[in-house]
Amino acid sequence: MAIRIAIYGYGNLGKGVEAAISHNPDMSLEYVFTRREPASLKLATSAKAVKADDVALYKDKVDVMIICSGSATDLPEHTPRLAKDFNVIDSFDTHAQIPTHFEKVDAAAKEGGRLALISCGWDPGMFSLNRVIADAILPGGNTYTFWGKGVSQGHSDAIRRIEGVVDARQYTVPVEDALEKVRAGKDPVLTTREKHTRLCYVVAEEGADKALIEKQIKTMPNYFDQYDTTVNFISLEELKRDHGALPHGGSVIHSARTGLENENNHVVEYSLKLDSNPQFTSSILVAYARAVYRMSKEGRVGCISVLDVPPAMLSQKTSKELLAHML
Amino acid sequence: MAIRIAIYGYGNLGKGVEAAISHNPDMSLEYVFTRREPASLKLATSAKAVKADDVALYKDKVDVMIICSGSATDLPEHTPRLAKDFNVIDSFDTHAQIPTHFEKVDAAAKEGGRLALISCGWDPGMFSLNRVIADAILPGGNTYTFWGKGVSQGHSDAIRRIEGVVDARQYTVPVEDALEKVRAGKDPVLTTREKHTRLCYVVAEEGADKALIEKQIKTMPNYFDQYDTTVNFISLEELKRDHGALPHGGSVIHSARTGLENENNHVVEYSLKLDSNPQFTSSILVAYARAVYRMSKEGRVGCISVLDVPPAMLSQKTSKELLAHML
Repeated sequence: MAIRIAIYGYGNLGKGVEAAISHNPDMSLEYVFTRREPASLKLATSAKAVKADDVALYKDKVDVMIICSGSATDLPEHTPRLAKDFNVIDSFDTHAQIPTHFEKVDAAAKEGGRLALISCGWDPGMFSLNRVIADAILPGGNTYTFWGKGVSQGHSDAIRRIEGVVDARQYTVPVEDALEKVRAGKDPVLTTREKHTRLCYVVAEEGADKALIEKQIKTMPNYFDQYDTTVNFISLEELKRDHGALPHGGSVIHSARTGLENENNHVVEYSLKLDSNPQFTSSILVAYARAVYRMSKEGRVGCISVLDVPPAMLSQKTSKELLAHML
Repeated sequence: MAIRIAIYGYGNLGKGVEAAISHNPDMSLEYVFTRREPASLKLATSAKAVKADDVALYKDKVDVMIICSGSATDLPEHTPRLAKDFNVIDSFDTHAQIPTHFEKVDAAAKEGGRLALISCGWDPGMFSLNRVIADAILPGGNTYTFWGKGVSQGHSDAIRRIEGVVDARQYTVPVEDALEKVRAGKDPVLTTREKHTRLCYVVAEEGADKALIEKQIKTMPNYFDQYDTTVNFISLEELKRDHGALPHGGSVIHSARTGLENENNHVVEYSLKLDSNPQFTSSILVAYARAVYRMSKEGRVGCISVLDVPPAMLSQKTSKELLAHML
C-alpha cells in the first residue's frame, strides 16, 4: 500500500509537494488541508481538499503530514500542534530559532507517540547535511555557504512594502571573485559585502520618487545596508515577462588540510542550480516524508532533523538495489 | 575516554589514518597491526606496532579496527575474519563484488556480535551518498559520475607491468565538454570515451621500443582501449619531480525535472578536489569509525554501509551544537 500523505497549506510549497508526489509512485496524496474554503481550491490531482479546522478527524487516515504553511509565523504554532496527532515534517527555516522550535515539536511528538522532522529543505536541509558531513570528515577546515543566483522572496517582500512600489523582485548573487578564491582553497576571510551582491528589479507607481525608493532600498537595515545593491526600475510587463520564475541555487564549500604537517589541501563542494526553489524544496520534503514513515514504523518518536536520517531511508530503492547499483 | 582505534595494514591508507586521527581529538590510535616485522615500522605517533598474527589477543583493547590492507585481494579475506572479533571498517572498492562482500562480513559480524561498515571512502562512499540522496529527492533523473583529474593507481600499475617500462603514472581526466553539457542540464548520452581521457607519463628502459610500449598501452583491454589515451615518455627524474603526489577528485552530477508537466530542471553537483587521495579516504574512514563506535554502543550489529549512517553520528560536535550552529 502506498504511503498516505497529506499537505497542510496549499501555497507554492504545497503545490510543489503535490507535483513531487506524482514522481514518487510509492506515495499517494490523500488530503490537502486549507484555511480557505475547500471548494475554492483547484487541486491538480484527485486528493480531497478539507478544512484545516477538521484536521484532527483525520489522524488515523494519514501516514505523514507535510506542513506547508508559512515558515516564520505559522510553523512555530502549526508544527507542535499537528505533531501530537500526526507524523509531521516541516521546512522551518529561521536558523536562530531552530533549537526552540525543535524542543517544542519534540515534546508534542513524544506526547502523541509520533515522529516529527523539522527544518527540511535545502538550507536548512541539504546544505546542513553537507556542512556537517564535510566538517566531520575534514575537521578544522573552513565552511562557506553561498546563495544564488536566485530570487529571495523575503527581500522582494521587503521592497514591496516601500511606499510607491507596485511590485519587485530581488536576486541574491554570489560574488564570483569570492567563490573563485574559496574554490581554490585560499580560505579567504570574507565580509558580508564580499560574499553576495543584491540585484533588484522594481516597478514604481507612476509619478513616484524613484531616487527616494532607491535610497530606501539601499539603506534598509540588515536586508540591504551591508550589501552592494543595484536597483533597476522596470515596467510591470517586463517584471512579469522576465522575472516570473523562482530560480535559486548556491554552494556549500568546505576547504581543509590533512596530514601530520597539514601538508595537503582538499576542497569539497556541494552546489545547486534550481529552476524552481519551491519545487526543489518540496521534492526534498517528500523524500524525507518517506524516511519519517519508515522510521516511525520502526518505533522512533519525538523530533529529528535531516542529520538523524540514514540516507538509505530516503530512497524508493531497496537496500539490495542500493548495495548492488548505487554504492 | 577517547575512542580506541587500531589500524590493520600500514601502507598509504594506514599512514593516512594515523595522520587523520591527529585531527580528531576524541580518538586515540592504540595499535598498528602489520604483516611486516613490527620493529621495522617507523610510526609517526606513539601507537604500538604489533604482529598481525597476534591481532586476536587485542579484541578487548580496541573499539574500532580500521582495515587498511589492499582492497582487491586482502579485504575479502581480512574483513570477514576481523569482523568476528572487532568492530571494523574497510574501504572495499570493487563495486561489482560489494553485495558478496557485504553478506560475508554481515554473517561474521553477527556471529561475533560486532558492527562492520564496508566500502567507505569517496567512491564508494561520499559519491555513493550523493548518488543515492540526489536520486531520492529528484527521482527519474540522470546521475553522472566523473573522476579526475587524478592519479589512478590501478592504471599506473597496469602500465608498469609492460616489458620495458621502469615506472609510470596515469591520470584520469574528465572531458570538459561532457562536464559542461551535464552541468547545463542537457542530459547527454555519453560513451565511456566521451566521459574521460587517459594521460600517461612513462619511464622506459634505455633502448626499449617506445612505439611498441605506446601501442601496448593504448590497446590494453578495459584499461585503455575504450579511451582516448595520450602517452608521454619522460625521465625517471621528471617522474619523481613532477608526478610524485597522488591528487584526485571528481564530481557526481544529478540532473532531473520536477513539476506536474516536468516543467522545471534542477542540477545537483557534489565535487572534490583532493591533494591526496589516500589522506582524504583515510579522513572519511576515521569519521565513519566514530559512527561505528556510537552505533555499536547503541547495540547495532552486522554489516552496514555509509547509506545506513545518520550524518550526526559522524561529527565531533554534539546534537545540540549541530542544531544550533550547523543546521
